[in-house]
Amino acid sequence: LEAEDAEALVRALEPVHAADIADIIEQLGHDERVALVRLYGGELDGEILSELDEGLREEIVGAMSPTVLADAVRELETDDVVDLIEDLDEPQTAAVLRALDDDDRAVVEQSLSYPEESAGRLMQRELVFVPEHWDVGQTIDFLRNQEDLPEQFYHVILVDPRMRPTGYVTLGRLMGSARKVKMVDIAEDSFRTIPVMQDEGEVAYAFNQYHLISAPVVDADDRLVGVITIDDAMVILDEEHEEDIMRLAGVGESSLSDRVIDTTKRRFPWLAVNLVTAILASLVVAQFEDVITQFVALAVLMPIVASMGGNAGTQSLTVAVRSLATKDLTSANVWRVIRREAAVGLINGLIFAVVMGLVGVAWFGTPLLGVVIAIAMVVNLVVAGLAGVIIPVVLDRLDIDPALASGAFVTTVTDVVGFFAFLGLAAVMLL
Amino acid sequence: LEAEDAEALVRALEPVHAADIADIIEQLGHDERVALVRLYGGELDGEILSELDEGLREEIVGAMSPTVLADAVRELETDDVVDLIEDLDEPQTAAVLRALDDDDRAVVEQSLSYPEESAGRLMQRELVFVPEHWDVGQTIDFLRNQEDLPEQFYHVILVDPRMRPTGYVTLGRLMGSARKVKMVDIAEDSFRTIPVMQDEGEVAYAFNQYHLISAPVVDADDRLVGVITIDDAMVILDEEHEEDIMRLAGVGESSLSDRVIDTTKRRFPWLAVNLVTAILASLVVAQFEDVITQFVALAVLMPIVASMGGNAGTQSLTVAVRSLATKDLTSANVWRVIRREAAVGLINGLIFAVVMGLVGVAWFGTPLLGVVIAIAMVVNLVVAGLAGVIIPVVLDRLDIDPALASGAFVTTVTDVVGFFAFLGLAAVMLL
Repeated sequence: LEAEDAEALVRALEPVHAADIADIIEQLGHDERVALVRLYGGELDGEILSELDEGLREEIVGAMSPTVLADAVRELETDDVVDLIEDLDEPQTAAVLRALDDDDRAVVEQSLSYPEESAGRLMQRELVFVPEHWDVGQTIDFLRNQEDLPEQFYHVILVDPRMRPTGYVTLGRLMGSARKVKMVDIAEDSFRTIPVMQDEGEVAYAFNQYHLISAPVVDADDRLVGVITIDDAMVILDEEHEEDIMRLAGVGESSLSDRVIDTTKRRFPWLAVNLVTAILASLVVAQFEDVITQFVALAVLMPIVASMGGNAGTQSLTVAVRSLATKDLTSANVWRVIRREAAVGLINGLIFAVVMGLVGVAWFGTPLLGVVIAIAMVVNLVVAGLAGVIIPVVLDRLDIDPALASGAFVTTVTDVVGFFAFLGLAAVMLL
Repeated sequence: LEAEDAEALVRALEPVHAADIADIIEQLGHDERVALVRLYGGELDGEILSELDEGLREEIVGAMSPTVLADAVRELETDDVVDLIEDLDEPQTAAVLRALDDDDRAVVEQSLSYPEESAGRLMQRELVFVPEHWDVGQTIDFLRNQEDLPEQFYHVILVDPRMRPTGYVTLGRLMGSARKVKMVDIAEDSFRTIPVMQDEGEVAYAFNQYHLISAPVVDADDRLVGVITIDDAMVILDEEHEEDIMRLAGVGESSLSDRVIDTTKRRFPWLAVNLVTAILASLVVAQFEDVITQFVALAVLMPIVASMGGNAGTQSLTVAVRSLATKDLTSANVWRVIRREAAVGLINGLIFAVVMGLVGVAWFGTPLLGVVIAIAMVVNLVVAGLAGVIIPVVLDRLDIDPALASGAFVTTVTDVVGFFAFLGLAAVMLL
């Protein structure tokens, strides 16, 4: 298909959804991508740009001619333009802004004045609202006389005379009610407003927790300034999850279409931290060189204790980090959760202690060695359970993202404790 | 508050959203929970039940009297009843079904006839549709004459004479159009139907990918049987993410409110798998007992090689598993991704090889030892990068969930290769 046949390409991509075209572009190699943009250029519309991965957007926008870019951008809604512009550099941003007409540019510039990742950046400014004292008939007539209603809206927001939202009515409810019914009487029970400066993660949490479909955004004086709809919240929820998974694995933001050098740079810091903690653990091992020289079996069994501790630690760590993110782990239940993790560690520790004790004896024929590894196993699994909860909770209290930093701390603790318990006990009992 | 004062409790919880009450219940200990249900019983409505964690639901429903349960259930929409019932055991299910009126029971029973986690279970059966040849005026009159429109709906579905959906119109568009306009002329461009047997994960993916707000569900003959709305898709997306994170950490489905024994059981299998793989790695170490006895420094440095490999493996593994889940990693780009991971592993491997080589020499004063650990580091990081992509891709092709199983395989590979490369090289070069 990449045989320079622009027409065939355009025809082939005609029925494909913008999101899928963006995915195809992401899967191409760099050279093919340049070729595609050159051939497909004119058809690359704003929607495809919105769907592209942040890293790639800059590359593609850079490869587009200014007039094509201007065409592409003009057909987007203002919140999509804001989303697009956020990740571009100065000259590209200026080019996009120039392409907009005056009204849209003012709106986009105002959105950009809110901090990144805030509700203000996320919201749409096309609003549908009526005074709270209106009835259904008035509202329907008003809506039907509007020149340009937003393309997507699901609620009519009710406002008081000072533009403060006081409730909203779903369009379905509005349709199904008699003309004489007061709007306030058919307003939804669960009505929440979102402060314009709220973090987008909190916004997504609120949508998910309270099953919101759309929510009015208010400024510091509680006045209506925009509206956020569930589809935007869903995108954010998806991004936040992705971030959490990637952070837990020490990968940082990343995507398959990043260049090798960027990926290498992103993964480097976590590996560097890991190297330092691994050296710490090695220093513990170094204290016991004498015992190891006499009982080389210790060197053979050592990795097992560390590995089991690391795994158990990751298990409770992951549960704790997620529970913190979903606000299920709070000061109200933190002690119970800690006791619980210790208990789980103790039970699993006892079971694996018996298993490993037997393996140790069978393998090396030294009953004392079995006892040593068994005790070390129990100690390490209990400590892993405790560290897996306590470390993320403490980091969270200190306002450090637990997903990002806990892993390194927890493995350090389990490695150090594991080696120390195992080799220390061995030194005491076997020498 | 738990001072047996039922009235104060009810008053205190009056303004709290059902989702938050469910969260409070989840955070209580078992005894407090029983006390709460006893005191708060009558007020525990269906909405709170729907919001509760699956594990707890059974406990709470079991503690409720049949009449209270019946009251609670009757006020729910049918899709929420289905969701509630799925996790209950036989007698409880029967009790809930008895509480419903005949129509609702028939609907619920039919939903339950679809496989678990399918679109059929997720969909609502309250539908709003009109013949495709109608105009806006006819549709509005029809809607306004309906007795009971669903509480939440955002689109009017257009169907052909054989009940096959052919498009949909948003309520906002309907409101904003003149009465004479044909419905088909204002139908949305991006219209997708969902097969009733489709997996709910695929449904959530489609909503997220194509920014759907609601989508008609069709049976095998393409006939309209239900509708899924974005709020349900968002819940599923959230659950799927949660599952992925938990599986990657080897935790399985779990929540803070599970009992200690359940949590222990869930975490046990993964630890058992890990024990086996750790023993495998130990067997490799055991082959080199002689070298270790002579150079105990090897035992000290050994954990560093394994730990770096494990971490690098987890990094590429996590990216690969997520990319498979989001369909960004496909057969079209798998080779490029594999080459990329190998390159990233090589670059980071070379950097850390230099660092660790120097550390090794400085620490133990043996240049050859530095060379050994440096080479082992490069080998292990490249292998980690490769294993981190290839293993999940192969598992995915074999229809095994890569999130669940990859971790164990990748760490086994990195441990075995790491120890073998490090100790093997040492045996060749130092002895």
